[in-house]
Amino acid sequence: MNTRTFKRLCCAFVCATLMTATASARDNHKHVPRFKLPPRNLILIVGDGMDDQQITIARNYLVGAFGEINLDRYPTRGAAQVLTYEEEAPHRVAYVADSANGASSLAAGIITSTGRLSTTVGDDADAVTIFELAKAAGYRTGVVTTSAVTDATPGAFVAHVAERACQGPADVAACGVDAKVNGGPGSIAEQIAAGNVDVVIGGGAAQFNQVVPGAGKTVLQLAMERGFQHVTTPAALEQVQGGRVLGLFSTSHMPVRLLGAAATRFTFDAANNPILPAPITCTNNPVYVNGSMPSLADMTDKAIEVLSKGNKRGFILVVESSSIDKQAHARNPCGHIGELEQLDEVAGLARDYAGDHLGTMVMVTADHGQSAQLLPETYFFTPPAGSPAFSSLGYVARVNTQDGAVMRVGYATSSGFLEEHTGVQVPVMVYRRIPFYLKPYVAQPELFFVMKEHLGLQ
Amino acid sequence: MNTRTFKRLCCAFVCATLMTATASARDNHKHVPRFKLPPRNLILIVGDGMDDQQITIARNYLVGAFGEINLDRYPTRGAAQVLTYEEEAPHRVAYVADSANGASSLAAGIITSTGRLSTTVGDDADAVTIFELAKAAGYRTGVVTTSAVTDATPGAFVAHVAERACQGPADVAACGVDAKVNGGPGSIAEQIAAGNVDVVIGGGAAQFNQVVPGAGKTVLQLAMERGFQHVTTPAALEQVQGGRVLGLFSTSHMPVRLLGAAATRFTFDAANNPILPAPITCTNNPVYVNGSMPSLADMTDKAIEVLSKGNKRGFILVVESSSIDKQAHARNPCGHIGELEQLDEVAGLARDYAGDHLGTMVMVTADHGQSAQLLPETYFFTPPAGSPAFSSLGYVARVNTQDGAVMRVGYATSSGFLEEHTGVQVPVMVYRRIPFYLKPYVAQPELFFVMKEHLGLQ
Repeated sequence: MNTRTFKRLCCAFVCATLMTATASARDNHKHVPRFKLPPRNLILIVGDGMDDQQITIARNYLVGAFGEINLDRYPTRGAAQVLTYEEEAPHRVAYVADSANGASSLAAGIITSTGRLSTTVGDDADAVTIFELAKAAGYRTGVVTTSAVTDATPGAFVAHVAERACQGPADVAACGVDAKVNGGPGSIAEQIAAGNVDVVIGGGAAQFNQVVPGAGKTVLQLAMERGFQHVTTPAALEQVQGGRVLGLFSTSHMPVRLLGAAATRFTFDAANNPILPAPITCTNNPVYVNGSMPSLADMTDKAIEVLSKGNKRGFILVVESSSIDKQAHARNPCGHIGELEQLDEVAGLARDYAGDHLGTMVMVTADHGQSAQLLPETYFFTPPAGSPAFSSLGYVARVNTQDGAVMRVGYATSSGFLEEHTGVQVPVMVYRRIPFYLKPYVAQPELFFVMKEHLGLQ
Repeated sequence: MNTRTFKRLCCAFVCATLMTATASARDNHKHVPRFKLPPRNLILIVGDGMDDQQITIARNYLVGAFGEINLDRYPTRGAAQVLTYEEEAPHRVAYVADSANGASSLAAGIITSTGRLSTTVGDDADAVTIFELAKAAGYRTGVVTTSAVTDATPGAFVAHVAERACQGPADVAACGVDAKVNGGPGSIAEQIAAGNVDVVIGGGAAQFNQVVPGAGKTVLQLAMERGFQHVTTPAALEQVQGGRVLGLFSTSHMPVRLLGAAATRFTFDAANNPILPAPITCTNNPVYVNGSMPSLADMTDKAIEVLSKGNKRGFILVVESSSIDKQAHARNPCGHIGELEQLDEVAGLARDYAGDHLGTMVMVTADHGQSAQLLPETYFFTPPAGSPAFSSLGYVARVNTQDGAVMRVGYATSSGFLEEHTGVQVPVMVYRRIPFYLKPYVAQPELFFVMKEHLGLQ
């Protein structure tokens, strides 16, 4: 064949190949679906009062000092500085937060004063929450907690009030200008009933059974009129298939999983030596063994199922283990260990869910530090011969662990009936399949922007 | 041109091109140096007792609640579980470490009992340290500390003793079988003098001025015979150009940078209300202002200069800010804040050095937790009307901060003259330019293996 013929054949072959490829690409376009971004979901898990002391104490008890809990397997960890302003001097820093202003930093990216829920210090304005932004962008929203659903942590995501004690319509004094009778939006329960949150599960039936002034109906009745399915038993919760859910499993806060004696002040013998309290063994609360009460993991499982059902946009779910804090206030080590175990189960299932769902981020953090300290069982320093032995200056409990050892836990922040919070920076753990870098040190309100960014909210 | 001629020309062109390329590659091999791995260096910075409470308290004082210290800018952060065995029951877990067994976990990757320095619990065997492995592999080694250089943290890297109090030849009773007179390797000071560590800088002249039994010479004289340059002033330290250095800047531990009153127990008024101690303002220790004492950063700067000089293999340097712990034991907030500031300066300069030196890793961590807690300045809970106000059950200090606020710090782990340690997991920060992933939760002995891996030690 001569050169010209060769060139012509060549051209014919190349052209044919190109045309076939183009046709094939067109066919593929028809038959192979374009890669679609999955729904973006965010699961924020808040351990109320869950600082590093709490985590270490719980780990040692639950899996032994050599073990790992689910929290330890999160691939990214950082620390968050909690920021608080004083109510009376709105630009003066206070170094210790409560659950209200800590949750407001997470929910709305603001720094505010203790007691406030997504309202600003100084001018008492409503700060736009991530739930409001998410709803406007078509996401579904939910809160699950072991406290009353009107307590501070869920409250900051679902309501705006100047004072966290404004939980039900009966709390008129606490509500002040937020009370309906004073022209406000009403208490947290009333704002849940009137609002657009899809899933609200926890304790706190008392607030929903109160009558709304002027309406002649309870908050619960108003909530059901707005489409909430009201459930009060694990079996009823299990039956829920979708839609809006209001699960209320106790009058106030839900019971704790692990029971045991609270810490005690040292007593002293005749020679003024401290008498060590006997080691305690934690026991399981029967209501969680016999299934009459759903665990935090049970409630979270259902919330994820309901929120994700037929949902192509995505959801934001806030899960709180509330009584880590409440049991530390009460100086009860079994109590806060069991509630950290509940949180850790949720950290495990949420991590699994995010592993199966590309667009899901899980963030675990705390709102503020707590009082408990892991003390030495044998003190390093000893007094001069003949002097009384040294003891903690506060309350002490000694807990039997599966290491075959005794773990001593102390609480000494207050002479009062409840311990106080501390101002320590709190841990943050994050998991997401899509590559992600968390700055290892953040101010707590920055986490709001991390979450907002993940959901692509403006 | 016909097809054959075209093919021949083609071949000639391709062959010529290939030959030229090969020749050019050969030339380049001659003139362009092969990329060489830089020296591998490791700077381990230990904040004795530096837990998250300590870091938060220091940050709030040093830069304000909204500020960031150098530690906060490390790109990788994790938590380390401190592991301790009981001396009397060698496989039973104790939940609170001391500096000795914590440092032994870092230095030798072992879990041992409190008081032990790189010796094993149960059989008192010497555990091979990372300094020994590094020396065998041709690295240079150094320790810098604000304590006596024979104290626990440096001690675990430069010696093997069963009891940390075995610091100088006069400590025969504490040394027991480790004493030279009992056929042992001698105290920590003697092991430094007889060993091969290149740089030893800190306090602790007392131990080196003791006479070694049988030798008729002081430990210092023996050390100088083995090539150590002995320096005792900042000016003399500055003059050191290389070789081996023994810097001893105080008889025992070095003085602290920030001075201020220690915390006090609450006193009470006639109505039994606690009387708040007056807020204190920390002041600078003149010895660090007038330059008569080198800062931890000064000593570290010189150590890096000496260790890296003409060193193509690399070095391992351990820097300890020791009195974070000692000042927390003594309930002195200014003291531990100032020593954390010293550590933070070192964290900054080491980070800069690693930024300029590709093969360098910096790791910052603590050996164990401490007692101090950041308490609320205004208590959340109030007593019934007419009852005394609530107070901490321990010692309390109130510190003026640059936020224009007062930060309250409490200590309540012991009725004795010194506070106790706590068992909380401790922070770990790492920086290295070569991509590196730190598992965010590790057992403390694992950090030994991370360091060993970085240096390529077997």
